[in-house]
Amino acid sequence: MYPVPIYRELSGRGRKIQATMSHDKLPMKSLRLEALGDGIFAIAMTLMVLELKFPEVEMNTWQNLIHALDLVKYNFLCYFISFIVLGIMWFGHRVMFEYIGRSNRQFIYLGVLFYMVVCLVPFSTRLLAEHPLKWFSILIYGANLSMCNLTLYIQWNYGRRRKSLLEREITHEVNDIATFLFLISPVVYLIAIVFSFFVPLVSLFMFAVTPLIYILPNKIDKFLP
Amino acid sequence: MYPVPIYRELSGRGRKIQATMSHDKLPMKSLRLEALGDGIFAIAMTLMVLELKFPEVEMNTWQNLIHALDLVKYNFLCYFISFIVLGIMWFGHRVMFEYIGRSNRQFIYLGVLFYMVVCLVPFSTRLLAEHPLKWFSILIYGANLSMCNLTLYIQWNYGRRRKSLLEREITHEVNDIATFLFLISPVVYLIAIVFSFFVPLVSLFMFAVTPLIYILPNKIDKFLP
Amino acid sequence: MYPVPIYRELSGRGRKIQATMSHDKLPMKSLRLEALGDGIFAIAMTLMVLELKFPEVEMNTWQNLIHALDLVKYNFLCYFISFIVLGIMWFGHRVMFEYIGRSNRQFIYLGVLFYMVVCLVPFSTRLLAEHPLKWFSILIYGANLSMCNLTLYIQWNYGRRRKSLLEREITHEVNDIATFLFLISPVVYLIAIVFSFFVPLVSLFMFAVTPLIYILPNKIDKFLP
Amino acid sequence: MYPVPIYRELSGRGRKIQATMSHDKLPMKSLRLEALGDGIFAIAMTLMVLELKFPEVEMNTWQNLIHALDLVKYNFLCYFISFIVLGIMWFGHRVMFEYIGRSNRQFIYLGVLFYMVVCLVPFSTRLLAEHPLKWFSILIYGANLSMCNLTLYIQWNYGRRRKSLLEREITHEVNDIATFLFLISPVVYLIAIVFSFFVPLVSLFMFAVTPLIYILPNKIDKFLP
Repeated sequence: MYPVPIYRELSGRGRKIQATMSHDKLPMKSLRLEALGDGIFAIAMTLMVLELKFPEVEMNTWQNLIHALDLVKYNFLCYFISFIVLGIMWFGHRVMFEYIGRSNRQFIYLGVLFYMVVCLVPFSTRLLAEHPLKWFSILIYGANLSMCNLTLYIQWNYGRRRKSLLEREITHEVNDIATFLFLISPVVYLIAIVFSFFVPLVSLFMFAVTPLIYILPNKIDKFLP
Repeated sequence: MYPVPIYRELSGRGRKIQATMSHDKLPMKSLRLEALGDGIFAIAMTLMVLELKFPEVEMNTWQNLIHALDLVKYNFLCYFISFIVLGIMWFGHRVMFEYIGRSNRQFIYLGVLFYMVVCLVPFSTRLLAEHPLKWFSILIYGANLSMCNLTLYIQWNYGRRRKSLLEREITHEVNDIATFLFLISPVVYLIAIVFSFFVPLVSLFMFAVTPLIYILPNKIDKFLP
Repeated sequence: MYPVPIYRELSGRGRKIQATMSHDKLPMKSLRLEALGDGIFAIAMTLMVLELKFPEVEMNTWQNLIHALDLVKYNFLCYFISFIVLGIMWFGHRVMFEYIGRSNRQFIYLGVLFYMVVCLVPFSTRLLAEHPLKWFSILIYGANLSMCNLTLYIQWNYGRRRKSLLEREITHEVNDIATFLFLISPVVYLIAIVFSFFVPLVSLFMFAVTPLIYILPNKIDKFLP
Repeated sequence: MYPVPIYRELSGRGRKIQATMSHDKLPMKSLRLEALGDGIFAIAMTLMVLELKFPEVEMNTWQNLIHALDLVKYNFLCYFISFIVLGIMWFGHRVMFEYIGRSNRQFIYLGVLFYMVVCLVPFSTRLLAEHPLKWFSILIYGANLSMCNLTLYIQWNYGRRRKSLLEREITHEVNDIATFLFLISPVVYLIAIVFSFFVPLVSLFMFAVTPLIYILPNKIDKFLP
């Protein structure tokens, strides 16, 4: 009878939540936290390049060049994997803020925790690049990436339950997809770590293919433009 | 009787201040200064990771790995403390800009001063990581962190008194909480510096637990979503 | 008869596209991706400076200073070329987002691919600066810059065809100009690589003058303020 | 007679310019260029800290600590000067964008030129810190800082004359103040360079006090909140 805008819940994306803040709360938009995160991701991604160095060998002939490239192949492989993994995490982090539009102290500190383990990725990537087929570097690298996923998952879970932070409703469907995508990698990395004691090449292969879970079409696509 | 929007001061958050700028003033929104700050924090946080290096020891057995981790434990501890401290300062800096929405020359230069001492944190963290139990590194580290708090406090105090910069009113309650949170750390750090001459391990312990003052629930939470 | 705003297509810029999103899609504004990209460009540009070092020679007399400058002239030349090339790529990337205002998973991952090769530019610049007249460094540098253009072109092509990402219509004229500007450099760089086996100085000269294609007035100017 | 909003030119700030863009132009807001610049400034400022290192001397006694601080005093002095100078340039750059709200190809490339010389500041600061009292380092440092001012001045002059980029009118008064502030430093630095051949300490002193021109109250304040 009257023009109330009814947002029917057509799908799992969830309704936009009306901003009904009481006057005694600060807005605390999450934009600044996102900016800090974007900066940290940009730097972590770029810093890894500082580690890349050609060996001090002659490269004057094709054979020498190929030899030099062969010497740095693990370095570049690790760089590519880490860069793509960070890109995927950035994507997850970015989608999270489509749902969570405000921040509070706890949410920000959980974000700082996430950024802290993200900042360690160039460090563990360097270790893996130096010792690509050793169990201890695979252990540390896998643990580092898993920690990234788990801390982001904790932040997501906190934000999801704190209604005053939400920008739009998080349906069960969205939460199920998110939970799967947050937790599948740590499981794969755990298996990779186990393999590292027997066939470390398999672990490296697993690190290289795990990103495909996120790069191939998945269920999250239906909420995206 | 008439529909004047009356924002009763329900709590310490303060009323939103009407934008009543005269035509001869530039808007000078503080967004750009915040962006500069976010960049500086992101870089300072990430740069510390560049300092982290595993010692050149064998790590092929668990004993060796644990030995290697033991060798870098202070490095990592200092990294974690500094990262969290910078996260806390970023949070304070971020909340400040909920109240202060414009900038002028003085406010920006006070911000540059704050960022200058923030940029020194990776430097003093490196010194502390190399000499975790020496009085001079504890002195420099504690002085650096205190300077961060004090310069931010000076910036806050300038902004708070310059009405034309305010986005929303700062009540006495908010200012009292802010003053306490700005000034408690330098006091603790001063005590830590005194202890460094006798039991430096206590100083390190104090650096590690001071963040709890800001991480545990505190009075500022009631203004946050 | 009625005040429908008719945006006649006056030129190749294209009409603004109405935001007609269905309720089951997230907005996914591209702003965050742009912020990540701005950060990565800023860091890649600045990191190259870290490579710049004066040789450890005496510079107390004018002859010595000129000698020192002579020793680093290729370093500085490569730095200037790379900086300007990155500036040009940033410009292309920036204009792209005038047309593409939303993002999805594929578009973001194509962006990550682009940023990955951009991050390698300081690395290949360093190699070229060390071996300015060697075929292998010219090969790697030329390949790196070409990859930047090609990955950005792929991202542009994906975005251009995905109507739900568009902020404004991309006319044939705009696409033709963009395609030319994306693909002309890789062609020039390919020729430079061929020359590197015979007269490497010509290759270096080609790297130095290619930016002029983008710096001199070109057809894109008519769409810009 | 009719309600035309008349913005009387009360002062030098200038009227807000109506957005009367023709439909065949892209908006090209300058926000992205500002973001790139903020990132570059943030990194250049923070990178200088990487250069700061304590000498490998004993610091166990107060005498030793003071000796160590004495050894690095020029390092820190140069760091402080450069940081503040970059802060001042950032401020000028920031105020410029209050007047110029759009960008085009030429304006962006002039911006890239400015950022290029800004990125060299950590490099020339390092040189000065290593040779604080030598004419060649003073020459290069002074030339670098002057180039920053001059390139920003060129960018300002281009933007100021291109009406389609303006966000608000630039009055003669504003332009005169800006011109003075852009050009006074290069003059002072030129004198410092001349002094460097006779009394280099005077040059260093001039570098240290030049920022005061911008830090002390000046005519630009009357346009700021």
